[in-house]
Amino acid sequence: MALSPDRTVAELRELQELTGDENGAQRVAWTETWEQARAWLSEKVAPMGAEEEIDQAGNQWFTLPGQSERALLLGGHIDSVPNGGWLDGCLNVLAGVEVLRRIAENGTSELSVRLVNWADEEGARFGRSLFGSSAAGGSMADQDELRGRRDADGIALPDALAEHGVDLDRAVEARRELEGAVAYLELHIEQGPVLESLDLPLGVVLGTFGVERHLVTFQGQAAHAGSTPMDQRRDALAGAAKLELELREIARRVGGGAVCTMGGVVTRPGIVTSVVETAECLLDQRHLEATQLAELLSNAEAASRRFADEEGLEVAWDKIWSIEPIPFDERLIELADEAVREVSGTSHRLPSGPLHDAAEVARAGIPTVMLFVQSLRGLSHTRLEDTKEEHLELAVLALDRLTTKALTAFA
Amino acid sequence: MALSPDRTVAELRELQELTGDENGAQRVAWTETWEQARAWLSEKVAPMGAEEEIDQAGNQWFTLPGQSERALLLGGHIDSVPNGGWLDGCLNVLAGVEVLRRIAENGTSELSVRLVNWADEEGARFGRSLFGSSAAGGSMADQDELRGRRDADGIALPDALAEHGVDLDRAVEARRELEGAVAYLELHIEQGPVLESLDLPLGVVLGTFGVERHLVTFQGQAAHAGSTPMDQRRDALAGAAKLELELREIARRVGGGAVCTMGGVVTRPGIVTSVVETAECLLDQRHLEATQLAELLSNAEAASRRFADEEGLEVAWDKIWSIEPIPFDERLIELADEAVREVSGTSHRLPSGPLHDAAEVARAGIPTVMLFVQSLRGLSHTRLEDTKEEHLELAVLALDRLTTKALTAFA
Repeated sequence: MALSPDRTVAELRELQELTGDENGAQRVAWTETWEQARAWLSEKVAPMGAEEEIDQAGNQWFTLPGQSERALLLGGHIDSVPNGGWLDGCLNVLAGVEVLRRIAENGTSELSVRLVNWADEEGARFGRSLFGSSAAGGSMADQDELRGRRDADGIALPDALAEHGVDLDRAVEARRELEGAVAYLELHIEQGPVLESLDLPLGVVLGTFGVERHLVTFQGQAAHAGSTPMDQRRDALAGAAKLELELREIARRVGGGAVCTMGGVVTRPGIVTSVVETAECLLDQRHLEATQLAELLSNAEAASRRFADEEGLEVAWDKIWSIEPIPFDERLIELADEAVREVSGTSHRLPSGPLHDAAEVARAGIPTVMLFVQSLRGLSHTRLEDTKEEHLELAVLALDRLTTKALTAFA
Repeated sequence: MALSPDRTVAELRELQELTGDENGAQRVAWTETWEQARAWLSEKVAPMGAEEEIDQAGNQWFTLPGQSERALLLGGHIDSVPNGGWLDGCLNVLAGVEVLRRIAENGTSELSVRLVNWADEEGARFGRSLFGSSAAGGSMADQDELRGRRDADGIALPDALAEHGVDLDRAVEARRELEGAVAYLELHIEQGPVLESLDLPLGVVLGTFGVERHLVTFQGQAAHAGSTPMDQRRDALAGAAKLELELREIARRVGGGAVCTMGGVVTRPGIVTSVVETAECLLDQRHLEATQLAELLSNAEAASRRFADEEGLEVAWDKIWSIEPIPFDERLIELADEAVREVSGTSHRLPSGPLHDAAEVARAGIPTVMLFVQSLRGLSHTRLEDTKEEHLELAVLALDRLTTKALTAFA
């Protein structure tokens, strides 16, 4: 029996009909709508006879047993942000369902094949993304902090999880699910403009960017906008403005796809009649190479100190969060390139700016790769998120080809 | 009887004791504390036999009748911002009291001398500054808008005024108070750093700056900070940053004491994971000359359009408020210069960035001048506002000298 990529598109629309509204997808993890989506998924997979299991972190697994317990994993997440798009996360799951169908009908393979629907990739309700995959991957180490988290309604994270059968204290036991995993494949919308700008439907992901995220605070002196001569000002906004403009120079100098973003500035007192006393700048720097990421950071730090000196300001750096670059598996990258070329003629390798569950699996030492399919206008996390149907179908086809290649290569 | 400038300092401290707390002065207009300050002022003036009157706008007048009804006016305001300083506004009133005392004891002069305690200069409760002086000066034209204003507790402005005997609809009748006024003198703390940086106690004010105040909005495109290459961004913050840094060049080019301030930037979505889509910039430009003020504005507009082009942004300008420059009287400026030189050796002429009641009187066609006394660290509208006692005493002396000169010159 042949693969039916158009069926995946139809099922994506069916899921959106079931769990979305006029504002977009509403499959926020640890909610009734999310449970409804998981039950729907379960029904879709049931006819192919796969074994279903929910692990201690709430991840939903479907296993087609092979001659060996060693398994090739396909993964995605059916949870969405509130008012999310119709593809982010669930495309991966439903493309995996179609691949599983094709494999189930073709008969037993040597390796087992497992599809995982990771729990709470988005972290939309409690601000903790990659929940299920970090538990399974072994990097979850913030249980104490998580116990204190509450959602917007004041409900504690452990209580919300318990309602869905997950005991936070035992979530890391999900780690056993990765025993025997030989490789992990994930398809995702790009969530960026690169493939669209190259007019390519598909790309192969080299790994996920390392991220350095800091709050940079320039401190000057509030002063009356009318009575303070220009040469007697210590304007914190001038430091922020210089850094904002220097960031692009730093990214250009370091190169290799570096991105640097000042995502926001908060000015205080922030009134029209006063020179700005403090400017708090949200800084995000990313690179696929650890040494170049460190270079981005040190360049920005040095520039901020230079600007503070020039403007008579103080500058302070507070780390918000960081993560190292996570490179994907070279052998799988080659196979993914082949698969993409076979279905669409041309492949393109690119890093992933956003993190994905695949990063947690790769960190756990499982050979991993991702495929990206073009995102229209680079939009995601909005109901405006979209991808051409023909590209979605090519993506399902490419994932299937890659699965076949991996089943052979890792058998 | 001689002038006692040290009495003014003592009375300033007495008033602060009576109407301030550990956070500063609390004489917000249209409150009980403000009434208490006015009653206290009334008692201070009573012994010298001046006629007291509250006009239709709530301004408190004390008149020492002369041989003529033509009058020299001295003015200030006893109201403060919440948590204000011990000098802003009331220094002028209490220095005027001391000058009145000296004149009263010296016997009748040809001109009448009137001290006015303007109502609600600060606009702290309802956001409408220069209330009493604009009513008397004839520029109040926003009664319809004022009727709809409410304070933080939801109390309507007309109701609050009525509690203090003021009928908003009749406030402009205060205009008759300026009939017969030959000149207006006002002393104020500088609220800026200029005199301190020159090590001078006193200065003569040339007039109040014209102000152009605008909201400048740059609009780009929100995009994922991790997945959007640097060359595919339309970063609204880059437009704001370029404008912030260009403002100082514009002020330098136009010269003549020009000041330009970006007092705040609001970035949206303003999160660390997104390129900034909109940056709303609060812009304040001031100059003492109308043509140069217009030049500041047109330069900034042109620069913003250039930066929008460079960055692929839209830019929109919305006027918040503007006022023309208000020059003071050349003859009075000369007399003030003489008075300042006599008491402190050196005079310095400077514009006023902040507006003052004097601006409303000058706009009404009354010859007007102001004296500034040095502010420590340029601070005002805070309990940290301060001026050396010796400078306060010199200021009272200079106001007295200027009064004597004006009484002769305008007789």
